[in-house]
Amino acid sequence: MSAPLGVAVLGTAFMGRAHSSAWRNVGAVFHDVPAVAMRALVGSDPGRTRAAADALGWADASTDWRSVVERDDIDIVDVCTPGHLHAEMAIAALEAGKHVLVEKPLALDQAEAERMVAAAEHASGLAMLGFNYRRVPALALARALIAEGRIGAVRSIRAAYLQDWLVDPDAPMTWRLRAETAGSGALGDLGSHVIDQVRALTGDEVVGVRGALRTFQRERPGPTGPERVSVDDAAWALLDLAGGATASLDVSRVAAGRKNALELEVHGTDGAIGFGLERFNELTVTEGRDGWPARVLVTEAHHPLLEGWWPPGHVLGWDSTFTAQAAELLRAIAAGVQPEPSFADGLAVQRVLDAVARSDAAGGARIELGQTDPGHTDRAETTR
Amino acid sequence: MSAPLGVAVLGTAFMGRAHSSAWRNVGAVFHDVPAVAMRALVGSDPGRTRAAADALGWADASTDWRSVVERDDIDIVDVCTPGHLHAEMAIAALEAGKHVLVEKPLALDQAEAERMVAAAEHASGLAMLGFNYRRVPALALARALIAEGRIGAVRSIRAAYLQDWLVDPDAPMTWRLRAETAGSGALGDLGSHVIDQVRALTGDEVVGVRGALRTFQRERPGPTGPERVSVDDAAWALLDLAGGATASLDVSRVAAGRKNALELEVHGTDGAIGFGLERFNELTVTEGRDGWPARVLVTEAHHPLLEGWWPPGHVLGWDSTFTAQAAELLRAIAAGVQPEPSFADGLAVQRVLDAVARSDAAGGARIELGQTDPGHTDRAETTR
Amino acid sequence: MSAPLGVAVLGTAFMGRAHSSAWRNVGAVFHDVPAVAMRALVGSDPGRTRAAADALGWADASTDWRSVVERDDIDIVDVCTPGHLHAEMAIAALEAGKHVLVEKPLALDQAEAERMVAAAEHASGLAMLGFNYRRVPALALARALIAEGRIGAVRSIRAAYLQDWLVDPDAPMTWRLRAETAGSGALGDLGSHVIDQVRALTGDEVVGVRGALRTFQRERPGPTGPERVSVDDAAWALLDLAGGATASLDVSRVAAGRKNALELEVHGTDGAIGFGLERFNELTVTEGRDGWPARVLVTEAHHPLLEGWWPPGHVLGWDSTFTAQAAELLRAIAAGVQPEPSFADGLAVQRVLDAVARSDAAGGARIELGQTDPGHTDRAETTR
Amino acid sequence: MSAPLGVAVLGTAFMGRAHSSAWRNVGAVFHDVPAVAMRALVGSDPGRTRAAADALGWADASTDWRSVVERDDIDIVDVCTPGHLHAEMAIAALEAGKHVLVEKPLALDQAEAERMVAAAEHASGLAMLGFNYRRVPALALARALIAEGRIGAVRSIRAAYLQDWLVDPDAPMTWRLRAETAGSGALGDLGSHVIDQVRALTGDEVVGVRGALRTFQRERPGPTGPERVSVDDAAWALLDLAGGATASLDVSRVAAGRKNALELEVHGTDGAIGFGLERFNELTVTEGRDGWPARVLVTEAHHPLLEGWWPPGHVLGWDSTFTAQAAELLRAIAAGVQPEPSFADGLAVQRVLDAVARSDAAGGARIELGQTDPGHTDRAETTR
Repeated sequence: MSAPLGVAVLGTAFMGRAHSSAWRNVGAVFHDVPAVAMRALVGSDPGRTRAAADALGWADASTDWRSVVERDDIDIVDVCTPGHLHAEMAIAALEAGKHVLVEKPLALDQAEAERMVAAAEHASGLAMLGFNYRRVPALALARALIAEGRIGAVRSIRAAYLQDWLVDPDAPMTWRLRAETAGSGALGDLGSHVIDQVRALTGDEVVGVRGALRTFQRERPGPTGPERVSVDDAAWALLDLAGGATASLDVSRVAAGRKNALELEVHGTDGAIGFGLERFNELTVTEGRDGWPARVLVTEAHHPLLEGWWPPGHVLGWDSTFTAQAAELLRAIAAGVQPEPSFADGLAVQRVLDAVARSDAAGGARIELGQTDPGHTDRAETTR
Repeated sequence: MSAPLGVAVLGTAFMGRAHSSAWRNVGAVFHDVPAVAMRALVGSDPGRTRAAADALGWADASTDWRSVVERDDIDIVDVCTPGHLHAEMAIAALEAGKHVLVEKPLALDQAEAERMVAAAEHASGLAMLGFNYRRVPALALARALIAEGRIGAVRSIRAAYLQDWLVDPDAPMTWRLRAETAGSGALGDLGSHVIDQVRALTGDEVVGVRGALRTFQRERPGPTGPERVSVDDAAWALLDLAGGATASLDVSRVAAGRKNALELEVHGTDGAIGFGLERFNELTVTEGRDGWPARVLVTEAHHPLLEGWWPPGHVLGWDSTFTAQAAELLRAIAAGVQPEPSFADGLAVQRVLDAVARSDAAGGARIELGQTDPGHTDRAETTR
Repeated sequence: MSAPLGVAVLGTAFMGRAHSSAWRNVGAVFHDVPAVAMRALVGSDPGRTRAAADALGWADASTDWRSVVERDDIDIVDVCTPGHLHAEMAIAALEAGKHVLVEKPLALDQAEAERMVAAAEHASGLAMLGFNYRRVPALALARALIAEGRIGAVRSIRAAYLQDWLVDPDAPMTWRLRAETAGSGALGDLGSHVIDQVRALTGDEVVGVRGALRTFQRERPGPTGPERVSVDDAAWALLDLAGGATASLDVSRVAAGRKNALELEVHGTDGAIGFGLERFNELTVTEGRDGWPARVLVTEAHHPLLEGWWPPGHVLGWDSTFTAQAAELLRAIAAGVQPEPSFADGLAVQRVLDAVARSDAAGGARIELGQTDPGHTDRAETTR
Repeated sequence: MSAPLGVAVLGTAFMGRAHSSAWRNVGAVFHDVPAVAMRALVGSDPGRTRAAADALGWADASTDWRSVVERDDIDIVDVCTPGHLHAEMAIAALEAGKHVLVEKPLALDQAEAERMVAAAEHASGLAMLGFNYRRVPALALARALIAEGRIGAVRSIRAAYLQDWLVDPDAPMTWRLRAETAGSGALGDLGSHVIDQVRALTGDEVVGVRGALRTFQRERPGPTGPERVSVDDAAWALLDLAGGATASLDVSRVAAGRKNALELEVHGTDGAIGFGLERFNELTVTEGRDGWPARVLVTEAHHPLLEGWWPPGHVLGWDSTFTAQAAELLRAIAAGVQPEPSFADGLAVQRVLDAVARSDAAGGARIELGQTDPGHTDRAETTR
């Protein structure tokens, strides 16, 4: 048995905690992955970083990400900081020869994203993007079924991602509601997941985009008075895919009663598939033109990503996606292949996000996206 | 008790049967409506019309709609013929001084629809359009709850109407798939219902439209070989409403596994409402910003339209909407008021349908609709 | 075409209205049945009976059931009066040579039920019992699928019928809560439907019974003060069937949030079936040992009982069961065969109800039921 | 900060893995618990135990449970071995002064269980039983709502636990299907969870039991030919609770289409609650006599057990129950109070299981259970 791969996580907030959970558990769940050593957690406050490292299982705590990135005993740098820091940290880690996992979004703008893709292309280490919903077993099963042709050719996808946390007009102003810090609102935050899924499920690139953005609540209370909201509360888009399918997308952070409702309905020439994230372990599968929707509980040993968990009927939670994501990276390192999704996948998603905004600015007119392949990966083994 | 109102139905097919059911049952269900006499059924084939009249409960059978429309003992003419005949028959009946009910769509094009609205304005009889889904008790409850402010101001509506009857590429060519006979495809057939509901639920007119149409199956088998499909299989639209809400609309006749899935999700500033036509008797209601979706079985005596039916828990079927629609017309006649929906409602819907097609032709760009009030009615008592 | 069959309904309340709806509509829905003439409605109050007859479509109104039963132009007597009148009326009608339909329950006690069965055996007319849930299309489909062996041999049935109308401790005393007028409470009212379904779905008789009754609310307000409730609020039973299956039954009129929840889950050696009455048009079907539950919308033309109604996706309501029940009787008259269910089916159900009460009185011990075939009918064509 | 508590897990199979996950994660999720050190994993095979220890995060691996139990640096012994070993191991660990957690079932028979309760009463360490479903957040919320009186007084519980793994008649013989090794079949395996929930949700003891057992498949294939199954495939029971409620219980391992369906419906005088384990993160709550069932996604920070996990809408999986269970034990150790559930809770459940079997043997007659309080704990803080 070779030496374990040393891991460092940059970031101690929500995503830092979720990724720490993945590194702590990946070896216990998946038996075919290289061993890891949780070497360092990086945060901004020394005391709180040390406490977090103790709680989350890290050997060292640091506030100096650059020195950590250059440590010889660190093989994997996992970037969980706010989006505007992704490019600098990821590029530095790649230049230091590390394998890099970056939490989504890849970057705040397309130029930065392109620099990151370029850095990844020239790096000795592998670069992976953290669209964790690719590791929802039900969505991985959906993708596998579609790839096998079980619902025929995909004609249309009806997709939404609805949350309710901004329903209240008095919900306070935050950096997430300013264009300069967040890029966009519901579109980037929620739409990026949907667009990634549309690409992953069909295996196709988006070639045409129509979009619309709405901000229902133009002002929100700041510490010293009302402040102007400069991002969207809700967004709609219609995406034409290279393979001929059309996807509609409806995302909102002002949808009362919906907590985390990523919903997808895929219609093919010979069946359909439905999914809702709040029912994480279920997939609805309609096979054949006259078929009826069957509710599959995606917990069988032969279902994708399930091989390392529990017996049938024992449901998984949201955090399991991060564990499976870590396993994907570890297997890719062991095999010396590109993990999925790549930085190029992140760039492809950002091009679509940008096009939605441009279409909205142009009154909804269709924006063509170049057919240049942004490097969409399609490794059969990822949906085992 | 005064003499019963004489009724004639024009048309013996699916809609003729559904409307006959309404006239046969309306007096038994609703006790506050004038009595009716089922005088004449009009069809094209003498023998089959006679047989249908016997089975459906009509005294006379006729193949001459003009003579029936002029009979003195006919008070109500109910037009259930194919759409291209609506204008001629309805205008003739109005000119003969009759009350007229026209099954949707009002007409095949906007010019015809405008002539019908004009005829209705100058007629002594009342004119009503058969958007029967206004009489789904759950949708009537939704409308009442929204009108009462129970979910606050409506911000967005996510709507779809999905069917599967054209999934099969070998489904044969019919008049419904040719632009010259059907006007449009899924858009007019299914979208019209959705647009009417969006208007009814919000009480607002559509002021801006973005749309897209798709025909997935360009050819279908005809009797002598492949024929060209000239209407849409699926359509999408984004509707801006005068009150500030935005509605997204996704309609398809190629959605495997969906039989008759009109689905609506209305998000307000203080709650949400959900409905699916395949679960006709249920409404999902989320009250308050922190509320949870409650499943209401809409069969209580105090629910809208329920007063004449059965005790709580005894579900209604699709045909009940026609019975309640007939009751609306009869009550309007008794009260001398305009029934709802009006021909003007039909015209308003058609303007939106046209705008969707024009937006699609213009690459998705937003079409402005004039703010001229097309006569949207808003009688509080209709949602009792 | 022969003369129509003359029909009289005895009873003008809830069931009289429901059965009137059936006679009014049966010819319009089902095209293979003899024509009927709605001749007479019988009630107790002359004025109200006349008004009801007018509203419901009856030619004559009468308060003298005996004279109506003897009219030469009456061929079918449909008994919808309270249960304690069933035996006298049904036997008189059979002795007058009429075909008889009796609303459930057949009678209040086993002795009466046995006299009715004897009268039916010696009559020239046909005798049918009104367990209308045999005409729920989804339940008819369930029965057909089980008969075809689609779920293998039935091992167990988990059944419930839950309502909420007695949850309130202040719900007033009525005749339904006294043993002398109602026989039993939830057991007879709700349990009888479940037991009939268990027999119909399996095609087997009940051979062993364990039961328990509970009255949670011992007193309820009467007009002059609290009165004693002498029937059960809830009942449980475990039924052993001749074919080897076991059915559990849980019925209650104090189940908050449940309006009319007849629920059935049938487990076989090779699949399972689920149904809930509040979702009248749906059946859940699991085929095979590894199958997943598929939600079937039971509105296709090839589904049982659907041939006369509407196109796929257009749901039926509760009242459709009475229309289909009337069609079954009319077809049986035309064919000269026993309609289903028979009076003997009613007697078989009552034997089980009695056994549940006896088991409860004996502390839950198992009661054996004789294997004498009570005449369970099993006409393949009834589940078309 | 004091020294961490040393933990040893005995057992490396399914439950050993689940409990290891709990110890590995408890400190990262819950911030108010004492730190733990994962000191030793005990198995039967040296090589496989060492490999499991490495994968699961244990410092030492051992095949000698007695020496581990006596180590000074072990404070908590967590018994995850097969049931027939529980008594010996737990008693030894208690006698060595350790805190003990025993996976359910407590023991195979009542005599053993009583010895374990006695040992726990005299021990210096704390003793806890692993009914992990007490840590399903939705069930903890149900318990809290009932305790607050939100559905009034509980009248009835309709409960089931349905699985499908024995549907296939050719599923092979195992130790789980022999009375001498497994005690009972579905009754003990699944019924024990249901009975524990019935007690926990009501806070009441079972005082009367009626039961029935069925073995549908009497023989199953063994290595050398058919062998006799000596435990139940399915069981039913009716439980009378001290507080006046009645619970029905329906458990089966031959229910096609049901993977892990623990289902509970609790009806009170003023509302109802519903739960299904396959939808782990949902609770259905009906408040008031006229209320409608609302679907609560139990992922809010204020919901029980949720304080340490993820933001609202991010669902938990089955394994989270073990993490929360470990936290309960750690908090109890820190506070010096009895954790819940206790060994006495396990004994109480076993008394009910025994009574079900005795009732079945007696033809279903009701068995009275003594009112001696078996030590049911009711710590308000456990459902935080």
